[in-house]
Amino acid sequence: MHPEAIHHIGHAVDDLPAAMDVYQRLLGGVVEHRETVPSQGVEAVMIRVGESRVELLRPLGDDTPVGKFLANRGPGMHHVAYLVSDIRASLRDAAEAGAELIDTEPRPGLFGLEVAFIHPGSVAGVLVEYVQYGGNRHGSS
Amino acid sequence: MHPEAIHHIGHAVDDLPAAMDVYQRLLGGVVEHRETVPSQGVEAVMIRVGESRVELLRPLGDDTPVGKFLANRGPGMHHVAYLVSDIRASLRDAAEAGAELIDTEPRPGLFGLEVAFIHPGSVAGVLVEYVQYGGNRHGSS
Repeated sequence: MHPEAIHHIGHAVDDLPAAMDVYQRLLGGVVEHRETVPSQGVEAVMIRVGESRVELLRPLGDDTPVGKFLANRGPGMHHVAYLVSDIRASLRDAAEAGAELIDTEPRPGLFGLEVAFIHPGSVAGVLVEYVQYGGNRHGSS
Repeated sequence: MHPEAIHHIGHAVDDLPAAMDVYQRLLGGVVEHRETVPSQGVEAVMIRVGESRVELLRPLGDDTPVGKFLANRGPGMHHVAYLVSDIRASLRDAAEAGAELIDTEPRPGLFGLEVAFIHPGSVAGVLVEYVQYGGNRHGSS
């Protein structure tokens, strides 16, 4: 079960209002969803840019995954999320293809999505997320 | 003139055959174009993943833009390219919005595209490319 398309690009930022302003003014971005998830240590804003999406990620603290990413690399692209129709089948196929799965089972992600991550070491340095719409089809309207 | 969609993600790699293999086997990628451009110091392969595209970039030497990127950061996402319908108008708008343009005029890019880059300092750390199809509509079929 291969991806249907890129669902969004994850973009880690330290100044969320400034980044939102850039996406809105420079790229015509429109805010689609906004959510703070303390358990994942992140505040996220999904922005539509034309037919595509960018997910801005602001860490809630230094000792969070996105906080550590920012400390190591500074603001920039964090992951590429691919839309799949059957995330369990896609994870099975990825494991059979030799990929190292960060999540062997899908878990609840932001915005009502089911998500799972694949280790960047398996995709030439790019952190890859698979996303599948759940029962609550956020973002698919 | 705001972007219509993400056209592709640029992904800098050191081992091009290995990266192509991963995109093909893991993500069902299909090679769309392949081009070596000595003047830009890069060998590029455009890969379709479902409806989306990833541009793999392998530097032809250490003293090239992509070579320096790899030396600094290792393999990973290099840029996000947005499709625009009027690249000159989009560049004008970007400059008026305060963005720092790397290319103030569009120039010939890979695969017959007209391209221009915006400095990552203007887009929260992400190198942004605008692309417009030229007379030779590579990749638009």
